[in-house]
Amino acid sequence: MDKKAYEMTRLQALCSEKGPLCIGLDTDPSYIPPEILRLHDSPAQAVLAYNRALISETARHAACFKVQIAYYEAMGIEGLSVYSETLKTVRSAGIPVIADIKRGDIADTAKAYARAHFSGDFEADIITLNPYMGFDTLAPFLEFVGQTGKGIFVLLKTSNPGMKDIEWLRLDPEHSREVRVLDVVGSGIENISGRFGQYLAKDCSPVGVVVGCTDEEEAEAIRSRYPNLFFLIPGYGSQGGVARIAALLLGRAGGTVNSSRGILCAWQKDPSLSLKMTSNSLTLDDIVESAARAAFNSKAELTGAKKTLAGG
Amino acid sequence: MDKKAYEMTRLQALCSEKGPLCIGLDTDPSYIPPEILRLHDSPAQAVLAYNRALISETARHAACFKVQIAYYEAMGIEGLSVYSETLKTVRSAGIPVIADIKRGDIADTAKAYARAHFSGDFEADIITLNPYMGFDTLAPFLEFVGQTGKGIFVLLKTSNPGMKDIEWLRLDPEHSREVRVLDVVGSGIENISGRFGQYLAKDCSPVGVVVGCTDEEEAEAIRSRYPNLFFLIPGYGSQGGVARIAALLLGRAGGTVNSSRGILCAWQKDPSLSLKMTSNSLTLDDIVESAARAAFNSKAELTGAKKTLAGG
Repeated sequence: MDKKAYEMTRLQALCSEKGPLCIGLDTDPSYIPPEILRLHDSPAQAVLAYNRALISETARHAACFKVQIAYYEAMGIEGLSVYSETLKTVRSAGIPVIADIKRGDIADTAKAYARAHFSGDFEADIITLNPYMGFDTLAPFLEFVGQTGKGIFVLLKTSNPGMKDIEWLRLDPEHSREVRVLDVVGSGIENISGRFGQYLAKDCSPVGVVVGCTDEEEAEAIRSRYPNLFFLIPGYGSQGGVARIAALLLGRAGGTVNSSRGILCAWQKDPSLSLKMTSNSLTLDDIVESAARAAFNSKAELTGAKKTLAGG
Repeated sequence: MDKKAYEMTRLQALCSEKGPLCIGLDTDPSYIPPEILRLHDSPAQAVLAYNRALISETARHAACFKVQIAYYEAMGIEGLSVYSETLKTVRSAGIPVIADIKRGDIADTAKAYARAHFSGDFEADIITLNPYMGFDTLAPFLEFVGQTGKGIFVLLKTSNPGMKDIEWLRLDPEHSREVRVLDVVGSGIENISGRFGQYLAKDCSPVGVVVGCTDEEEAEAIRSRYPNLFFLIPGYGSQGGVARIAALLLGRAGGTVNSSRGILCAWQKDPSLSLKMTSNSLTLDDIVESAARAAFNSKAELTGAKKTLAGG
């Protein structure tokens, strides 16, 4: 295995140092006030301006940023240029960028996806993957991970209600040592994680999992089942996950807790902006300041919840 | 429900009329001889030239084309422009284009993916989806399907060895009427399919499934379990699936059988080109003619296998 430092190790260190907040740049043009949109050549350019200002003003509160590619694909080719610029802006700010792409396909296709998102225009530091088609679909990404230090987060337990449909199904006790579908994913990922050497001593495995923060009891169970895996934790903030549950999921190995709309759309609930909102005179500075305050508060809330948990 | 004709109905009719062949445009630059690549400004432009010539020369043998987006993402922003042009070229040729994107995400994100791939630069007629995160993740796509006549193919049983890891897991008989994970997906999709009215009389449901052709016994079982679902059948040709198995999967409801590399790379095994291959003097016309012959042969093989099956 190459001695190149893993991006995931860097992310783990940043989470310890700065707190576990991951800011999600799921920047839909509808999250930007019309009076600001109007000042740009296109909705995509407004998104880029918002992202750039946001990264500059909130990077000090965040361990990393996560960019949800769907919102950029929805803006077509121009949107993907903005996606590319957004990834570059985060990387220039010196913190890791997670590309939330949730790809998963047969090996030859997965090779193409790995090239697409670990190099070139869309180079990210860490990406998310969907394990449904089986563990062989992860292999081309793992090859990159070993060679370049990139990282992957594999979907384990998502934060949407439909999680019960497939991930949560109970398995036949005669045919499986695992209780549920997601346990098979988890055990598989633990095995794969272990291939990347003695990361537990000081390095963090470059292979982590996505675990939504939606229920306290399940959060404790899943953290104690996978004590050594680093988690990407969505569902905090606008999706209803609370700081205490996120803190439970962090555990010893740690994780990064994503908030997207709670920060991007903070201006919509900012009482100090109500007059400007009524008169449609918000500026980019206004909404970025709201977002930065929300990022600071989220960071403080998560750090506080972690301390309370450690103290209790 | 809107009375707009479904793209899937059109595809089903084309399959009956022209045979079930779907040509896969998984056009990696490595599938093009270096002497042809060299004539273009970039690998992406060579891919576009090959795709355009191929569509023009093979459209008469195909019911549809399937474009695997991963190969275009791997070429960055320019690659996605070529992807967009490829989709437009197929649609201009008057036959449906399937975007093989295998997306799957929480509802808000799925809405963005639906906009991305059912409208704008990346508008396709039918797309593939990954059901792992649950049935709620399909809802935004179904809304589009109802309103615009677009179609979806949901992954049911894929053709890679890793299919055994998750899709093929046996469920707890005490908690599920379904035997395996993929049966839960199949039953769910059958229910969803049924919402789109009396399609069985003459229309084809706009909601189909992906079923790889890898094993004769399983092919018969899965076709008899879902007699009314239209199938997208990958794995024929270079992945090892044979025409007889594909024909078994077609059944009464039908399906479309994809071949990608078997057609795109036909020139590599074309004895009539061996001299030109040795002297590195292949032309675009040469490789397109090989591909067109391979498409004709695949179509004939599939139609023959279907007739043999019906006769026996």
